[in-house]
Amino acid sequence: MRFAVIGAGRIGQLHASHLAHAIRGAELVAVVDVAMPAAEETAARWAAKAYPDLRSVLAQEAIDAVCIASATETHIALIEEAAAAGLHIFCEKPIDHDLAHIDRALAAVQQAGVLLQVGFNRRFDANAERVRAALLAGEIGEPYTLHLISRDPAPPTLEYLRGSGGIFLDMMIHDFDMARFLIGAEVESVFTLAGVRVDPRIGELGDLDTALVSLRFSNGVIGMIDNCRQAVYGYDQRIELFGSKGSIRTDHQYANSATLQTAAAIARDLPHHFFIERYRESYIRELEQFIAAIESGQPPPVTGMDGRIPVVLARAARLSYDENRPVNPREVDG
Amino acid sequence: MRFAVIGAGRIGQLHASHLAHAIRGAELVAVVDVAMPAAEETAARWAAKAYPDLRSVLAQEAIDAVCIASATETHIALIEEAAAAGLHIFCEKPIDHDLAHIDRALAAVQQAGVLLQVGFNRRFDANAERVRAALLAGEIGEPYTLHLISRDPAPPTLEYLRGSGGIFLDMMIHDFDMARFLIGAEVESVFTLAGVRVDPRIGELGDLDTALVSLRFSNGVIGMIDNCRQAVYGYDQRIELFGSKGSIRTDHQYANSATLQTAAAIARDLPHHFFIERYRESYIRELEQFIAAIESGQPPPVTGMDGRIPVVLARAARLSYDENRPVNPREVDG
Amino acid sequence: MRFAVIGAGRIGQLHASHLAHAIRGAELVAVVDVAMPAAEETAARWAAKAYPDLRSVLAQEAIDAVCIASATETHIALIEEAAAAGLHIFCEKPIDHDLAHIDRALAAVQQAGVLLQVGFNRRFDANAERVRAALLAGEIGEPYTLHLISRDPAPPTLEYLRGSGGIFLDMMIHDFDMARFLIGAEVESVFTLAGVRVDPRIGELGDLDTALVSLRFSNGVIGMIDNCRQAVYGYDQRIELFGSKGSIRTDHQYANSATLQTAAAIARDLPHHFFIERYRESYIRELEQFIAAIESGQPPPVTGMDGRIPVVLARAARLSYDENRPVNPREVDG
Amino acid sequence: MRFAVIGAGRIGQLHASHLAHAIRGAELVAVVDVAMPAAEETAARWAAKAYPDLRSVLAQEAIDAVCIASATETHIALIEEAAAAGLHIFCEKPIDHDLAHIDRALAAVQQAGVLLQVGFNRRFDANAERVRAALLAGEIGEPYTLHLISRDPAPPTLEYLRGSGGIFLDMMIHDFDMARFLIGAEVESVFTLAGVRVDPRIGELGDLDTALVSLRFSNGVIGMIDNCRQAVYGYDQRIELFGSKGSIRTDHQYANSATLQTAAAIARDLPHHFFIERYRESYIRELEQFIAAIESGQPPPVTGMDGRIPVVLARAARLSYDENRPVNPREVDG
Repeated sequence: MRFAVIGAGRIGQLHASHLAHAIRGAELVAVVDVAMPAAEETAARWAAKAYPDLRSVLAQEAIDAVCIASATETHIALIEEAAAAGLHIFCEKPIDHDLAHIDRALAAVQQAGVLLQVGFNRRFDANAERVRAALLAGEIGEPYTLHLISRDPAPPTLEYLRGSGGIFLDMMIHDFDMARFLIGAEVESVFTLAGVRVDPRIGELGDLDTALVSLRFSNGVIGMIDNCRQAVYGYDQRIELFGSKGSIRTDHQYANSATLQTAAAIARDLPHHFFIERYRESYIRELEQFIAAIESGQPPPVTGMDGRIPVVLARAARLSYDENRPVNPREVDG
Repeated sequence: MRFAVIGAGRIGQLHASHLAHAIRGAELVAVVDVAMPAAEETAARWAAKAYPDLRSVLAQEAIDAVCIASATETHIALIEEAAAAGLHIFCEKPIDHDLAHIDRALAAVQQAGVLLQVGFNRRFDANAERVRAALLAGEIGEPYTLHLISRDPAPPTLEYLRGSGGIFLDMMIHDFDMARFLIGAEVESVFTLAGVRVDPRIGELGDLDTALVSLRFSNGVIGMIDNCRQAVYGYDQRIELFGSKGSIRTDHQYANSATLQTAAAIARDLPHHFFIERYRESYIRELEQFIAAIESGQPPPVTGMDGRIPVVLARAARLSYDENRPVNPREVDG
Repeated sequence: MRFAVIGAGRIGQLHASHLAHAIRGAELVAVVDVAMPAAEETAARWAAKAYPDLRSVLAQEAIDAVCIASATETHIALIEEAAAAGLHIFCEKPIDHDLAHIDRALAAVQQAGVLLQVGFNRRFDANAERVRAALLAGEIGEPYTLHLISRDPAPPTLEYLRGSGGIFLDMMIHDFDMARFLIGAEVESVFTLAGVRVDPRIGELGDLDTALVSLRFSNGVIGMIDNCRQAVYGYDQRIELFGSKGSIRTDHQYANSATLQTAAAIARDLPHHFFIERYRESYIRELEQFIAAIESGQPPPVTGMDGRIPVVLARAARLSYDENRPVNPREVDG
Repeated sequence: MRFAVIGAGRIGQLHASHLAHAIRGAELVAVVDVAMPAAEETAARWAAKAYPDLRSVLAQEAIDAVCIASATETHIALIEEAAAAGLHIFCEKPIDHDLAHIDRALAAVQQAGVLLQVGFNRRFDANAERVRAALLAGEIGEPYTLHLISRDPAPPTLEYLRGSGGIFLDMMIHDFDMARFLIGAEVESVFTLAGVRVDPRIGELGDLDTALVSLRFSNGVIGMIDNCRQAVYGYDQRIELFGSKGSIRTDHQYANSATLQTAAAIARDLPHHFFIERYRESYIRELEQFIAAIESGQPPPVTGMDGRIPVVLARAARLSYDENRPVNPREVDG
């Protein structure tokens, strides 16, 4: 499976690295970035070729799939271009901030008969898989309540935030996906409490940095998502799913298991600092399963619709905040 | 300090035991219960005398204080009677379900110049004290987000539930108090998601058994309370307070620290099963501090107003559920 | 059961407190100390009477039992005196440092037909009981290997150490008892590695402050005991028993379950600092069971022989160190 | 750096996989095994070539280094052959069971001026590195006591055991190396307690399956190693290093951080089952550092002498068991 990775930023470099050496069956052929020096640096690292755009790749290379890791606003056009070329598409989240654009892209994919997988990598994390497995195996009985905590070690740059779509579309979107993945039902109501606590400049952008969103699912499960742009102790990623026969809880992942006992405290080193360290395995597994889906002709583990619904939920969460009322996601969908 | 304990049920027996032998400066003189055999059994156990009502105690014994642990609907009259007799009053939560009644009782207490402490024992638990101390000492910086989880091992009897006032007044009231205690600010908005998941007969009573309540405090902190009437693994009592410089989290308390490693799992025994084991120390400390407040002339650590406000919040939480909207507690307060 | 507590030092005060208010069926009648001010202070605290010696108590009070918590060198004479007076005897560990003396005292006890229990309180700790229960219930199968770690937060005074009998008789004696209690078999060989690491003045007394003692039991279990006079993070008391079907491990006990997450570490407060906090419950339970044994006519849970054998093992451990060879305890027993 | 991997068993396959795709700067050229089908299978997997012996590789390929992962008894001849060919050598532990053979191989390496690194992979584990770093950074002060626990999930086949050299040379050799690595001093005395508990057939081979070895280091540190061929709960790999300013302890590594709370227990899934999962990262890092040493001309992080000394200690441990006395390793060295 010959790949072009589009976007040579942090996440594009990560995917390029995995496709180049860590994923059996994958070959990294091209790295694309409008900033050619960036494309060249990553390409050189893995003995691939650098291109300024997808069109140039298509003109010179035989490839099977693209991995889209460029800026969000470029996703729709790239999906359409790749679909038209008959390429399978792995696209980073979110597909887009606009539902009409997303629908156009999904239609293009369907028409071309190619496979589209969205990059909700956390589904492939061992913790998330274990929680899901516990539910499916009946280990916790009927699910009652879900808690998702996701806190970043530090906010992104203000420049990044300006184009990010805001905390719900940029950050909590992962949790909306996780909620749907774990519960296996749709969210029928969201209610948001949020504020600007970390940095007033985030508020000046019209964005928020700290939020609690309550969720009610169609199957009666209730839950909440806790997001904050800054947890000084590192990347905080926790899940708890509580039900009639028990509860399953995940906790931090650490680089070592050492406990240091001194006159000051019984202490562990900080957990993994951010997503690159914390979710490394999941980034590999999502691409392995993308390839497996292509080879088997099965649907991908994260579909285009799985990419679309969290965008709806993110918009509903923002509306709930703006109007201080619970919002049914259908209100913001069309 | 000579005490009469009123009510010889489970919690009355606990207080009687502590006053009789575990609290320096306290003496258990009388145990009161309309069911005289119950009063006699507890009284005999601690070499105290049994009485059918407070009036009879007052007629025959010189006492300084009462510990009211009878049914909630008897609290107001007992507070008024004790206040009129110049007795200091320790009263179990909730004072009453009706705010007007509470106000009448608080007025009687104030007029009599006696001291009233409400039995929110969890404030005196080492975990709650540690979280509060972390906040006060600046260990977590500015507080952003609060999580309170309180799950009982099993629901009470339906008969008990019928007169309980419902999950918000009977169970979550502890968490409303804890939220105010930990944050040191008032709740300005509550929003409730809830359902009947544990037992449909609870729903037939018009009650709920599983709830998530979102809170917004006057100082900008946001938070949520998770209650369920049944956690099969035992009494689940957890706090997390997250802020600008860190987070403090408490977890289960166990009867031992042993971990059993077998071919099946790496496992610990279940945590303390319920409040009697889990919060034993706090029940002693709240009475010690009640006595200390009387002796020092200082206000009690949990005032009558601290007993009143959680009732307001409980009523607001129910209204939020009924109307599916965030509720400002002032809406339900007169 | 009317008690005189002999010795008003730290441990005598603890027993007096428990007998006075925490143990049903016990009454604290007298506190004895050659230093009458100390006796008076403790006696006054619990409304008991102070005496300078046991003889004076016997002359003026009707008592059923003594709790001997005076200096080790006074134990033998007190046991003989109490036995002659027909009193049941609870005696702190070690009974004595000299085996011939111990044998004399045990003979006096047997002749008088009174009950003697030795104060190996740790057997009554929830952790030790849980490990023992795991073994008896077959949860870990056949036992293979035992690890006992016991480290004090700080060494006692040099004055205390001078008369202590050394680390094996004063400190590790608890672990020798624990080893026998947990394994239910006798130690056939000890081998000692030890040194003076904490304070050279301990070495100048001819004592040691850090030791690892290997044990071979008659039933094939092997094990080791780790002692140090100073662990700066507090009282370190751990057990691991490993066997064919698993392993059970105990860990620190803490005053709270809070974890503080900051930019520096994920940390817990230090565990209980020393035995008074850590083993409080066990001190109550050992006396409860002493009383229960007297009342039931059953043998005590820690017999005179249980008090004698750890003294043999302590002497063997020292000989092993002195001669750098494994020692069979029978070598040092008469 | 072009590699031939010699030996296509479990550990050879692991190294081949890492050299083929996970280690920058490495290239897997050849896989050697006397059993050609095994060589071919592994070679095919990574697009390398299969050979029946090193001589054939040398005849047809230009390689820079060998990774010797064949049976222990073949190591010496292969080291000599590789050294004669000017190849750098990574050799699995133990180099050999015979000290004279080891000395011959080390002399050949020295004469050829090639670099030899021995495969004590655990030094490169994040836990071991963290313990070592704590000591070097002064976080635990002066080291007093070391505990190493290493238990396998299940014994190897009897056929394997027959040629293994016994528990000390085959299994505890890792711990002897770890002890030296962590403490940075040599062992001056070993004393062994051991037995056959897991499987009597292991005893029939003259081997042992359960052992506790006490160590005294030249710098005054004392320690012990606990080995067992079978821990039913999985691979148990723990370190504790205790000193004047604190203690550092490592614990199990798990595939996920989930805790399952049910009516039966508060439980985690079993830890990593065996070394392939548990130490994967360390196997990559040891080869990365081997390559870095070659490139930089620095000595390797695990030298030939580091490979030799644990063999001495293993022999001393066995002698201690046979003669039931502490043994100075010099006794068994020449």
